Amino acid sequence: MIVVLTPNPAVDVTYHLARHVPGETNRVEEVSRRPGGKGLNVARVLAALGVDALALLPLGGEAGRWIAGALDIPFATAEIAGETRTTVTITDGSAAHPTVYVEPGPVVTEWDAVASLLGERLAGADLLVISGSLPRGADPDLVSAWVRQARAAGVRTLVDCSGAALLAAARAGADVLKPNVAELLAATGASDEAAGVAALSGAGLVVVSRGAAGMAAYTVDGVLEVPAVPGVRGNPTGAGDAATASLAAGLVAGLPLGETLRRAAALGAAAVLCPVAGEVDLLAYQDFLDSNGAPA
Amino acid sequence: MIVVLTPNPAVDVTYHLARHVPGETNRVEEVSRRPGGKGLNVARVLAALGVDALALLPLGGEAGRWIAGALDIPFATAEIAGETRTTVTITDGSAAHPTVYVEPGPVVTEWDAVASLLGERLAGADLLVISGSLPRGADPDLVSAWVRQARAAGVRTLVDCSGAALLAAARAGADVLKPNVAELLAATGASDEAAGVAALSGAGLVVVSRGAAGMAAYTVDGVLEVPAVPGVRGNPTGAGDAATASLAAGLVAGLPLGETLRRAAALGAAAVLCPVAGEVDLLAYQDFLDSNGAPA
Repeated sequence: MIVVLTPNPAVDVTYHLARHVPGETNRVEEVSRRPGGKGLNVARVLAALGVDALALLPLGGEAGRWIAGALDIPFATAEIAGETRTTVTITDGSAAHPTVYVEPGPVVTEWDAVASLLGERLAGADLLVISGSLPRGADPDLVSAWVRQARAAGVRTLVDCSGAALLAAARAGADVLKPNVAELLAATGASDEAAGVAALSGAGLVVVSRGAAGMAAYTVDGVLEVPAVPGVRGNPTGAGDAATASLAAGLVAGLPLGETLRRAAALGAAAVLCPVAGEVDLLAYQDFLDSNGAPA
Repeated sequence: MIVVLTPNPAVDVTYHLARHVPGETNRVEEVSRRPGGKGLNVARVLAALGVDALALLPLGGEAGRWIAGALDIPFATAEIAGETRTTVTITDGSAAHPTVYVEPGPVVTEWDAVASLLGERLAGADLLVISGSLPRGADPDLVSAWVRQARAAGVRTLVDCSGAALLAAARAGADVLKPNVAELLAATGASDEAAGVAALSGAGLVVVSRGAAGMAAYTVDGVLEVPAVPGVRGNPTGAGDAATASLAAGLVAGLPLGETLRRAAALGAAAVLCPVAGEVDLLAYQDFLDSNGAPA
């Protein structure tokens, strides 16, 4: 069982317009709403892979109730008094970049309830994944506490956070960190990848995703690199979450690190082919693995 | 008791930004959410005036539940399967006009439940106000049916709708219609106000709001006009709803038409002073009435 904690979930709303005209009243042609947050994407991809996973998340208000009603994966929640945040993405097919509005989200005061939930669910778990941002005002050391809580329960940790939360995970000795290059440099203030990884030395393993340049795993024995699947175009949102899910599945299955990375790169590419974050094209995944000359 | 039907309520969300940059990810600094829809504004103003009023509305989904939890006026609902719509307004204080996104809203199939609710609540009522748009796809003749249902129950009707719904209310012989000039011309296709009112001849009384040019009541005996309160600047959204509420209160109180119009103009101006639709500045209202040389 992989437990996936999403500290800052959201209702991700997308408004499809015929033509986006800022400064005017815009009739929305089509609305899509989905539960969002990197950890939920990870849990969804694990479910698609057939891996036993449980999403944990704080939820509050009507937005929280909506998420609880819409989730199609196993989950458990800590109830919060604040209203879970919403993000709104405006797209009209013409703009190079969509316009996105991100609510600040609630100030969460119920971290004890989250720790209790985690305590209940870590028993017997194989891995804890912590993924995504913290709510505003939340102490980054919460991530340290969750990592230590997992270790005390005999559960390994994989953390995909950014900024101070990433540093906190390293300080607490997380088993695996998975920043992308930009997150790594921003969090550590380092000028290159190797220096950034060195600043996260408390962690057991640091896997850096480099987008089209593949992935690199920094172990005590050296650096293991895998290329990205070439020529894949589509929606990069959620590719990192698919790679995180694949890393988590590989760790739990006890696969060699090289094979785990190869699968993570292939699954990330298979996510790029899907228009929605948290989904993967499993047939393409198999093709990517097969064409890469190693057994799936 | 004034019963106010809002056929198409909404959650009105406002995102306050430091600077709105279309095509980018915008961090929202402050979020405000309120129950929206013209009928709810009317009911809120009636409550502020101390007039006994009951808001009726179809509600569905989490947005509907949010509205039910947030309303601070007496209300009763017909539950619908669809999700009540949301509107999102983006403001950063710099733009001349905010950017607004209006969801299409649910396709409501539960109009029988609305009619039942109306039937229960019309008993003993003094007036039915129907205010605001119909949900997409709704037959404008629903408005005719509600007007006839009220008449059968011995209850007068005041309708503030636009387009085909305004024409349907006239056809059914609504007691009072209250379009603004633009709505009047758009609904009737007329090129001037008098011709537009003539096209609504099925109604007992047509009150046309002219913004800064005041209001005009077209009766069988002629046209009664009142000027707007001069020099009032602020937020015109909701001014028409305040005027509608005032008209409703005057009708139920049996005031002379001239006094009713004078009050409606003053209350509309008092709404312009408030940043939020559905609110009125009651001290300013009293001042406006006093300075207009007639007893309040």
